Amino acid sequence: MSEESLAEALRVPPGPVDLSAWDPAATPAISGDKSDGEERLAALGPDLLDLATRVMASKESERPRRLLLVLQGMDTSGKGGVLKHTVALMDPVGLRVTSFKAPTEEERSHDFLWRIERAVPPLGFIGVFDRSHYEDVLIQRVRHFADDAEIERRYGAINDFERRLVDEGTVVLKCMLHISPEAQKERLLARLDDPAKHWKYNPGDVDERQLWADYRRAYEIALERCNTEHAPWFIVPSDRKWYRNLAIARLLREHLEDMGLGWPTPAGLDLEAERRRLAEDTVS
Amino acid sequence: MSEESLAEALRVPPGPVDLSAWDPAATPAISGDKSDGEERLAALGPDLLDLATRVMASKESERPRRLLLVLQGMDTSGKGGVLKHTVALMDPVGLRVTSFKAPTEEERSHDFLWRIERAVPPLGFIGVFDRSHYEDVLIQRVRHFADDAEIERRYGAINDFERRLVDEGTVVLKCMLHISPEAQKERLLARLDDPAKHWKYNPGDVDERQLWADYRRAYEIALERCNTEHAPWFIVPSDRKWYRNLAIARLLREHLEDMGLGWPTPAGLDLEAERRRLAEDTVS
Repeated sequence: MSEESLAEALRVPPGPVDLSAWDPAATPAISGDKSDGEERLAALGPDLLDLATRVMASKESERPRRLLLVLQGMDTSGKGGVLKHTVALMDPVGLRVTSFKAPTEEERSHDFLWRIERAVPPLGFIGVFDRSHYEDVLIQRVRHFADDAEIERRYGAINDFERRLVDEGTVVLKCMLHISPEAQKERLLARLDDPAKHWKYNPGDVDERQLWADYRRAYEIALERCNTEHAPWFIVPSDRKWYRNLAIARLLREHLEDMGLGWPTPAGLDLEAERRRLAEDTVS
Repeated sequence: MSEESLAEALRVPPGPVDLSAWDPAATPAISGDKSDGEERLAALGPDLLDLATRVMASKESERPRRLLLVLQGMDTSGKGGVLKHTVALMDPVGLRVTSFKAPTEEERSHDFLWRIERAVPPLGFIGVFDRSHYEDVLIQRVRHFADDAEIERRYGAINDFERRLVDEGTVVLKCMLHISPEAQKERLLARLDDPAKHWKYNPGDVDERQLWADYRRAYEIALERCNTEHAPWFIVPSDRKWYRNLAIARLLREHLEDMGLGWPTPAGLDLEAERRRLAEDTVS
């Protein structure tokens, strides 16, 4: 079975972005249905684990690397689901997950990138941002928490920040989980109906939802302004959970494969000398 | 099939500890072999995921909780393997894994618990310490990095620190991964023989190995002095990897079950009012 590149299918082309042209229920570049999708996600597990381990191993190479997965999307779009089903396929020892909440008083007394910078994982890790610095040009724009000039400044600051990450050896993979307001309503109602999901229900989500059109516009602008060659945006249709999880797994695999990481032998490691030392020792 | 409690089988009894009385190749309280073991570990996945999610949900309850899994053991004892095979069964969004290395200059200029305290996850998380504050009474004792009076002081400081964690709502689960020097030699040789494992090979491990008897003694003392009612030690025979992974999964499940966590409904959440708000809104 030949596989179309997800990166090609989901990458946002340069220029203005019109989200209404992206169907949140579509399944680009992946055929089949939910049960195929879940099987294929599980089948990707060994590949993802192997590739993620190479990122860890790169610490011992001449050029340590990292990957940063940025997950953005409206409430219930499935950032948590991607973590639970897709990110979970990789080794937790090499993962650094940060879930960004409303900034604290201390965080607000610094530049918006201060808390972001602190959450960047060391080289040799896969970082996952569950929400990110894009909140600072999304909710902050919609809610007027920052003035126009400041929001304007931030697009450039974000591009510079991501450029620096890339120059340092980072692959920045930015995914917008695109859902419809109808799917969101269904998911919010499902949380109310299932006692095991009440803890995830936040009445504030319904308030934000009333500003759907403003958020859509803020996303379109951010996706256009920060859609750089070094850190492009991908739009992942997310009304179908199985597609969302599988598509991000495939995007991860493609990006990790493109890093072309082998298995480094640490500088100066003399395999024969070490074998002899071990063969000769009498520790018991 | 009735299951014997792993906590009962592996808990270190109060009093002096003699590690030579614990067989590293034994399989206490678990019958069957490697292939059964791997199947049973996979079968525990859904339970562990559900229980770990309840810890996350406890953030929305009147009494938020956390669990801290402390993994200690000689090099190659399988701390990484437990992370990859057992800890990986839980949702990465609720995990905080810290791998402690040799302390940095800044860390050495503080009390030994300074860096440990900073790595304690917030309530609502499962923390995993891959090595821990016990290094400060193990390698530091064996290598005389601290004097006798300071090592002596640390046992008490550790007990006070763990007491404070428990008082705050933490379950502290401390596992010593117990291997034989013969198993270690095999695993080190295997790392040399497999190019995909060279990056894990550290010649320093062979130096530490020469001090096996000193480490065994340092472990025996730490296991005795810090084997408290509130944070007891468990010795996990680890020559058989499948047993180690399954035993720690069972220990995790038993400890999480004992926390008795339900699904909280956030204070003030009015389910009917929220259903009405959603039913009436016209966002599209």
